Amino acid sequence: MKAFTAWRDANVQIWHDYTHHPFVEGLGNGTLRHEAFLKYLVQDYLFLIHFARAWALATVKADTLEEMQAASATVHALLQDEMSLHVGLCAAAGISEPELRMAEEHPANLAYTRYVLEAGYSGDFLDLLAALAPCVMGYGEIGARLLANDDDTPYRDWIETYGSAGYQKLCADTAALIDKAIETRLGPCAETSPRWQSLSRRFGTATRLEVAFWSIAD
Amino acid sequence: MKAFTAWRDANVQIWHDYTHHPFVEGLGNGTLRHEAFLKYLVQDYLFLIHFARAWALATVKADTLEEMQAASATVHALLQDEMSLHVGLCAAAGISEPELRMAEEHPANLAYTRYVLEAGYSGDFLDLLAALAPCVMGYGEIGARLLANDDDTPYRDWIETYGSAGYQKLCADTAALIDKAIETRLGPCAETSPRWQSLSRRFGTATRLEVAFWSIAD
Amino acid sequence: MKAFTAWRDANVQIWHDYTHHPFVEGLGNGTLRHEAFLKYLVQDYLFLIHFARAWALATVKADTLEEMQAASATVHALLQDEMSLHVGLCAAAGISEPELRMAEEHPANLAYTRYVLEAGYSGDFLDLLAALAPCVMGYGEIGARLLANDDDTPYRDWIETYGSAGYQKLCADTAALIDKAIETRLGPCAETSPRWQSLSRRFGTATRLEVAFWSIAD
Amino acid sequence: MKAFTAWRDANVQIWHDYTHHPFVEGLGNGTLRHEAFLKYLVQDYLFLIHFARAWALATVKADTLEEMQAASATVHALLQDEMSLHVGLCAAAGISEPELRMAEEHPANLAYTRYVLEAGYSGDFLDLLAALAPCVMGYGEIGARLLANDDDTPYRDWIETYGSAGYQKLCADTAALIDKAIETRLGPCAETSPRWQSLSRRFGTATRLEVAFWSIAD
Repeated sequence: MKAFTAWRDANVQIWHDYTHHPFVEGLGNGTLRHEAFLKYLVQDYLFLIHFARAWALATVKADTLEEMQAASATVHALLQDEMSLHVGLCAAAGISEPELRMAEEHPANLAYTRYVLEAGYSGDFLDLLAALAPCVMGYGEIGARLLANDDDTPYRDWIETYGSAGYQKLCADTAALIDKAIETRLGPCAETSPRWQSLSRRFGTATRLEVAFWSIAD
Repeated sequence: MKAFTAWRDANVQIWHDYTHHPFVEGLGNGTLRHEAFLKYLVQDYLFLIHFARAWALATVKADTLEEMQAASATVHALLQDEMSLHVGLCAAAGISEPELRMAEEHPANLAYTRYVLEAGYSGDFLDLLAALAPCVMGYGEIGARLLANDDDTPYRDWIETYGSAGYQKLCADTAALIDKAIETRLGPCAETSPRWQSLSRRFGTATRLEVAFWSIAD
Repeated sequence: MKAFTAWRDANVQIWHDYTHHPFVEGLGNGTLRHEAFLKYLVQDYLFLIHFARAWALATVKADTLEEMQAASATVHALLQDEMSLHVGLCAAAGISEPELRMAEEHPANLAYTRYVLEAGYSGDFLDLLAALAPCVMGYGEIGARLLANDDDTPYRDWIETYGSAGYQKLCADTAALIDKAIETRLGPCAETSPRWQSLSRRFGTATRLEVAFWSIAD
Repeated sequence: MKAFTAWRDANVQIWHDYTHHPFVEGLGNGTLRHEAFLKYLVQDYLFLIHFARAWALATVKADTLEEMQAASATVHALLQDEMSLHVGLCAAAGISEPELRMAEEHPANLAYTRYVLEAGYSGDFLDLLAALAPCVMGYGEIGARLLANDDDTPYRDWIETYGSAGYQKLCADTAALIDKAIETRLGPCAETSPRWQSLSRRFGTATRLEVAFWSIAD
């Protein structure tokens, strides 16, 4: 987790704002209003679609078969499994699938998803991964922390999803994919190259947009 | 101005929110705070860069030499002329060019510019034009209206720029480029094809993001 | 198979050159030299990688969840199943995986794969599908015809792959995906719109590049 | 000319095949058949359109205003000046503009132009420049060499265009743009990073496709 750790440390304040956002704390201690959670679920459905598109773009922009297979496996998991889980979760909360599809994307949702996709289109595979990393890794960090807290909260399912061994492994795999992708492109000097700084800034901007995403439900 | 008029009418409320935003009214009657205007100028500098990139993308995605030449002429004008005018305007207002370059993009700025670019990358030439149209055409409509008002305002220069015959001609040319591009792709049935609706929705989303852009300065 | 049938009929001569190429006839009647087949297998390995990338790009450029799922399922099948089948087939023929990876792309291979990808990047979902269709559908047509011939040939495995019920169903599904995608974008006037002609031309150009691909092994 | 020199030296054989191709030698000593030159002119017209699109894509993918302005100036020069020069040249040779527009792209032309564009779309600014460099720099090298030869040839105009001080300066500027772009992205370790090798390979592949382009006229 070399790159992720370095980029997180270089963006420590905004990373904290993201992973300790009032929305997150409310999930953890159960004070988050139910309507706020529902609002989040609807936007998150729309987010997942663009997130899957971004990982599909990573498949296109990969340099090796291994990178392609890793990115494509994520797309497959998102579109075949996650999506129906999410739709089921929403249905249980009283939000039908047609409602989800007709929902209007919030500007903060548009900002984050289009930033990630445009980073991928205009930059290369590394730019795309740097923009995707805050979402994947941050959810894992939040899930693990809240799961350890063991507070009584109606949002236990959400916490268990992202705190689960399965999701934690996904985070480790993603971090390894990033480290390997950097090494095979930038080599041993990666950390002193200007690319490292620009990727860290991309990571920081995506993190800023994650903070704004949590604020949708306010 | 067939397509523009139709799309504007299909998004009449949000179009009004954009073209009659308090920021715009403040420009017109002079009540806009100077700091708000400066904040706008800085973000608009960053916006112009991505706006030029979007028109360059239109050059890539064009189907004919004429479309390429029209889009490329806009890029050229933006990068060689507009940019230095804007930098000069900012300098006069006490904002140096290094300051402009170092400024952090506001989330509403990220949202709008990346939405337009991603529409272009993921869609086709028409998707890109539909996303670019609210900015080009809206500024023209605002400029013409405020110029006619003839109120006393310190923002007279801004109004004269967008109310000028030159800018009004640019709007007419852009509307004609859009109408021609639609006709050569979708033919006489364009208005009844589902594409027409999806382009109108793109236009509407971009307009929503313009409203949010004006609110940056709040 | 409305669009496919129409585009094929509009490009009838080049379609015949492709589906009845001497390489194809040699596969069918067993006169194809073994070295020519090996040369083809190596280039086809490199082709499959870009073909998977193109379907991943289709996932990015899709408009609906259904389109995304269809395109992504193809990527998944190509990267997780087809690829290892192909590597196994090559190994059986004495070509190791490292050899496959180090092979130089033939100009005709570069031409076809980059044409398809660029059509997708510069155009929209329909442009990409029109460029992908000749490969998917043509192999199905060739497989079905040669399987029916029932000639004695060492290339029986190849013929059975593309003549199989499974592959024929994939062709039917792809044709249906294309017809539906056209209908939801261009509506009932699709066939009279200029888009129809330009998609047909894309299909024709991709078919021309398929002919050149068969000629690699000459 | 650090990067260009290094990449050319790493692809010395194919670079020689390109810059000393029989077509080139025939231009220099006047033995090139007139029909072959006309065939080249027609394909070169189609090439120029995609070449301008590729430089427009470079404008989109640039990181700095200076890079954008350099790339956009090239697009502008190509679309506003070069194009009409080329059309005039063709007209003088008896090929009308409608003929040029209706001409079918040769597979070798498709291969080269789509390879460059796809390199830009799938890679980053550096990938695009590495794919564009052989054309820009090679024509300059050929022009300078043939001009010095001072042979009697009906293709003197062509030679003087690319041997001219103006074009030689364009080459120097492009080489400087590449060197600067590498330095600001990869830093002092650029030459030892894996990116350097992959850019050199891109340069080599594009050079291979240039060789095939000359062979169109055979």
